[in-house]
Amino acid sequence: MARINDNYLKLSAGYLFPEIARRVRAFQAEHADARILRLGIGDVVLPLAPAICEAMRAGVDEMETDQGFRGYGPEQGYDFLREAVAKHDFAARGVDIEPDEIFISDGSKCDSGNIQEIFSVDARVAIPDPVYPVYVDTNVMAGRTGVADASGKYANLVYLPCTADNGFLPEPPKQRVDLVYLCFPNNPTGAVASRQDLARWVEYAHKNDAVLLFDAAYEAFITDPQIPHSIYEVPGAREVAIEFRSYSKTAGFTGTRCAYVVVPKPLTGAAADGTRVDLHRLWMRRHTTKFNGVSYPVQRGAAAIYTDAGRAQVRERIDYYMSNARLIREGLSQAGMQLFGGINAPYVWLRTPDGMGSWDFFDALLSRAHVVCTPGAGFGACGEGYLRLSSFARRDQVEEAIDRIRKTFT
Amino acid sequence: MARINDNYLKLSAGYLFPEIARRVRAFQAEHADARILRLGIGDVVLPLAPAICEAMRAGVDEMETDQGFRGYGPEQGYDFLREAVAKHDFAARGVDIEPDEIFISDGSKCDSGNIQEIFSVDARVAIPDPVYPVYVDTNVMAGRTGVADASGKYANLVYLPCTADNGFLPEPPKQRVDLVYLCFPNNPTGAVASRQDLARWVEYAHKNDAVLLFDAAYEAFITDPQIPHSIYEVPGAREVAIEFRSYSKTAGFTGTRCAYVVVPKPLTGAAADGTRVDLHRLWMRRHTTKFNGVSYPVQRGAAAIYTDAGRAQVRERIDYYMSNARLIREGLSQAGMQLFGGINAPYVWLRTPDGMGSWDFFDALLSRAHVVCTPGAGFGACGEGYLRLSSFARRDQVEEAIDRIRKTFT
Repeated sequence: MARINDNYLKLSAGYLFPEIARRVRAFQAEHADARILRLGIGDVVLPLAPAICEAMRAGVDEMETDQGFRGYGPEQGYDFLREAVAKHDFAARGVDIEPDEIFISDGSKCDSGNIQEIFSVDARVAIPDPVYPVYVDTNVMAGRTGVADASGKYANLVYLPCTADNGFLPEPPKQRVDLVYLCFPNNPTGAVASRQDLARWVEYAHKNDAVLLFDAAYEAFITDPQIPHSIYEVPGAREVAIEFRSYSKTAGFTGTRCAYVVVPKPLTGAAADGTRVDLHRLWMRRHTTKFNGVSYPVQRGAAAIYTDAGRAQVRERIDYYMSNARLIREGLSQAGMQLFGGINAPYVWLRTPDGMGSWDFFDALLSRAHVVCTPGAGFGACGEGYLRLSSFARRDQVEEAIDRIRKTFT
Repeated sequence: MARINDNYLKLSAGYLFPEIARRVRAFQAEHADARILRLGIGDVVLPLAPAICEAMRAGVDEMETDQGFRGYGPEQGYDFLREAVAKHDFAARGVDIEPDEIFISDGSKCDSGNIQEIFSVDARVAIPDPVYPVYVDTNVMAGRTGVADASGKYANLVYLPCTADNGFLPEPPKQRVDLVYLCFPNNPTGAVASRQDLARWVEYAHKNDAVLLFDAAYEAFITDPQIPHSIYEVPGAREVAIEFRSYSKTAGFTGTRCAYVVVPKPLTGAAADGTRVDLHRLWMRRHTTKFNGVSYPVQRGAAAIYTDAGRAQVRERIDYYMSNARLIREGLSQAGMQLFGGINAPYVWLRTPDGMGSWDFFDALLSRAHVVCTPGAGFGACGEGYLRLSSFARRDQVEEAIDRIRKTFT
């Protein structure tokens, strides 16, 4: 019998966003007139910046000519993009990352989902709760967990509760673990970590020979100049951390697809016999064997983000979304709701009124205000009682959604 | 200690193509004047078809507008592309594949490398020898093999020798296995399988409850109307086979990145308790959790392959390469070399002269004729004594390479 990977059967329910889409479709089918406003999935809505589109069209033009045509590129990405990343995203902030430590990919979902493949199936994994579901699900699929309990917590994972009590900043665990997923600015809570907060994690990783998997997909939304954009701004992080970056939210690339992961060369893990092995080399092997590079015109578009015009245009869009976040914060807190995040992150984390369950409040918002959000419980047990509101929407939709929520729930 | 995936340490040497690139770079560094001709990696050289570029530019234009902008698309691909695939690649050949059985991806390397994740780590795998290295390496990385012996054969894999003796058509194995990788038209040997050949595999799979992983990346190069383009042309295949298709070679997409995999709904595997589980559902879970869809303008470009203009332009390019293949066959067989393939496939499989080793002949060709090919041994132990020549090159380069090889080795 062709035996399946039984770990897949441990996965609870559908992946969060398809489940939301299903409920929205079902509601819309029964209420054809309802004009649904979406502050849910966290998908950008503003068009791609002209500088990016111009570069992509130029890339396509090249592909149409004998001289300009590009076949297989380097799986790790073209130098023109890796060098721009190293210069603008790292050197400009005083961080030393070499271009060949940067692996261009087609998305942070892929990178943060695939990275666990280079680690032992016995690796002990710590995961914040609530958390981006991909970190958890890919470890379940790889067999690093047992089954889930009634609250959705999987056996063998070390959960790091992030609640209002700890300001949504998890403590390093008491026990030692091999891998720690961290995400700052945080999805879904919108929390950020200070340099000191991150330094504690770097220290933990050094002390416990752990590897930090640091998701910085939302770093462009940081407004406070004191908050680090990269874990590598913390001394010693190059020896213990892998960092994920994405153009999805920063530059509106959710449908265009480009991201990157940084695997520094000093970073090592241990083989069964205790030998130290370069994780850069392992990831290189994984990346070149199971991936074939990002579309050339897309890499051209990504590189245009770093031009003067590109930076200015991308900044405008980020500011637009952050103004939305401010409106959501102000509008709903005036209505007496308790809110977190939304200052250095595009997400606002809302406590449900009257201790209502996340999915119940999701259904209530959908059926009564025709507003889609993301139920906190979809991000983990500690997200129960919360809701994520995304600032990735048109201004008029944000204003109307705030208005509807206020009218419906106050 | 953050333990690594020790299976990676079993992988022998580098991945084939980077190793070739390394040797070529080293030679070029020492011989700056040498004008190297490349019939190696199998990368297309003709520019993208105008119809494809036009559609991609139109896709980028849409992304620049409020109305046309697309964020996250369906991970499985847009309906416009899945429907075009179902109609033109399958229905047109009398094969019934539903659009939602088609998963659009960014490449067959990814698909054929990732597919094993939905199967048990204990699954017994049969792999042709020689073979596209990705099938083997991804199973090594997943832990389905022991270590490699001196000839490069991994313990626990069932190798299916493909040699001149069996016309490069492997026999179904005597023992039962769970998964069988097949590739027709074959990379690297250029062999094709008749309907009867494939029917034997479908029968084997039904009898042994095995799953066939059928790579049809080169189907567009078939010239003989009797040869099936899809395994689904064989009755009963929908219950036992997954098929990979790629635009890389067909439409010159090696640098543009788009492909798809077909996972039919009747296909099942067995859970540990014997329950039958839909592989379509498992792959959907894998695909939506670890992948986020192909770039929208790229999907627009791929859909343009199926327009009248696109089909004609793509056909011209395929014919160009197949004329190259004919020239290689004719030129080198006149020189007394023994050749296979190159009739229904873009690859010519050459027996090395005087029983020379593959890598030795590779080095000799590089250093004496300044021609790059792919050593057969890089595809497996049974590829030893062979060399793959690719027809993906400019006509003048092909002609000159043939000329140089003839002068050097006859």
